[in-house]
Amino acid sequence: MDKLQVVKVGGNVIENRESLNEFLFDFTKIRGAKILVHGGGKEATQMAQKLNIPVQIIEGRRVTDKANLEIISMLYAGKLNKTIVALLQAYNCDSLGLTGADGNSVVAEKRSSKPIDFGFVGDVISVNSALFNLLLNQKITPVCCAITHDKNGQLLNTNADTIASEIASSMSAYYEVTLSYCFEKKGVLKKLMDEDSVIPSINSSQYEHLKKEGIINEGMLPKIKNCFEALKKGVTKVRIGNSKMITESIAYTQIKL
Amino acid sequence: MDKLQVVKVGGNVIENRESLNEFLFDFTKIRGAKILVHGGGKEATQMAQKLNIPVQIIEGRRVTDKANLEIISMLYAGKLNKTIVALLQAYNCDSLGLTGADGNSVVAEKRSSKPIDFGFVGDVISVNSALFNLLLNQKITPVCCAITHDKNGQLLNTNADTIASEIASSMSAYYEVTLSYCFEKKGVLKKLMDEDSVIPSINSSQYEHLKKEGIINEGMLPKIKNCFEALKKGVTKVRIGNSKMITESIAYTQIKL
Repeated sequence: MDKLQVVKVGGNVIENRESLNEFLFDFTKIRGAKILVHGGGKEATQMAQKLNIPVQIIEGRRVTDKANLEIISMLYAGKLNKTIVALLQAYNCDSLGLTGADGNSVVAEKRSSKPIDFGFVGDVISVNSALFNLLLNQKITPVCCAITHDKNGQLLNTNADTIASEIASSMSAYYEVTLSYCFEKKGVLKKLMDEDSVIPSINSSQYEHLKKEGIINEGMLPKIKNCFEALKKGVTKVRIGNSKMITESIAYTQIKL
Repeated sequence: MDKLQVVKVGGNVIENRESLNEFLFDFTKIRGAKILVHGGGKEATQMAQKLNIPVQIIEGRRVTDKANLEIISMLYAGKLNKTIVALLQAYNCDSLGLTGADGNSVVAEKRSSKPIDFGFVGDVISVNSALFNLLLNQKITPVCCAITHDKNGQLLNTNADTIASEIASSMSAYYEVTLSYCFEKKGVLKKLMDEDSVIPSINSSQYEHLKKEGIINEGMLPKIKNCFEALKKGVTKVRIGNSKMITESIAYTQIKL
């Protein structure tokens, strides 16, 4: 079975042009099949402010109303996705940007408005692995942003970690898949401020323990859930760490069942 | 030889959600292979105003500086392109949005800054017909926006009429191609305000005559030049008219060599 690397990048890495450039250069060093999934960063909030569009937060999470969905489409699918694709092409990595609507690559359903209406937010229901195979067979690297659609004309804001997990899972029928979640930290840290406290490996029971101790919390909880989902659905290896782990032998956190 | 329809849509058609929807519904009625190229509309100017980004006009043409290129990327490749793709999917027309950077579909070179520096504006140098064939063979309709790239990491603003002409020309090696320029009018009009004065056919010598008489002027001049270019490069049929010409037997202007 051929190998496939699915890499999710987010956080500060994509918000700064220099670090994005450096990351993309490293990404192109991956030999063979690869898929990139990128988050959006904080620019959507800044753009909403500039355009005087109110941002509603419920229970710590943004509500994606029509105006904010438009901003997300502009920034994620327009500005960021196309900047990434153009830079990858400059590094001779033939790539093609996708939202979930493009070629029905990732189809989702709008999340129920009860108990809380988060607006145009979608949960993934299917990945078009035939399209990803079509592109990969031509040595074209798919670059996916955090937007899906419902097949009825509605674009939906969808968590990029989940998209990466679902694509990796779906492609594990055809490839031996490694899923890497890249961000600015070196991995899941035992002490938040100590970059040298990377936990090398976390399995289900350790996860429960770390959760109870409060070492894993907030945004890391759904991320690790996505890791477990991917492993359950056939992904060979899942890891969280700094993007340098793609090319260098550095510490990272491997998630295991 | 199989038939291919390359349709360019612009003007008021794409600026209004209702007329866009109606056009897309008609577009999906085209049987067989089709490619859609869309312009951008006036929203870019409005967005620049909202964001307090100055728009410089030289000799009646916008200068695409860095900030305006970003706006164009957001609106054309993000908002409009993805809205179109999602709507086409809702009509069961499997489609995939592209800038020229995606899969190197349309490569351009930055226009010389002399005598006038129009900024990040690109002239098409090549079309990746292999990519278009790959998608069309899978019954996926490419949806192209008016952005290209230079293969060195730079996105470029490029005339959508020219992109349509270049794609149609390039694909004429594999298909019998009809190129349709759709806008709100019924065709090239003898009298600007009289929709019933459609000129049914214009060849090179008639073009020169109409130009001299001032009947064809301004934006119509480069559009018809693009038509002639396409015909010279092997496109079978080129026409200008209302988008209803795609599905109905109505008057339009056919351009002939």
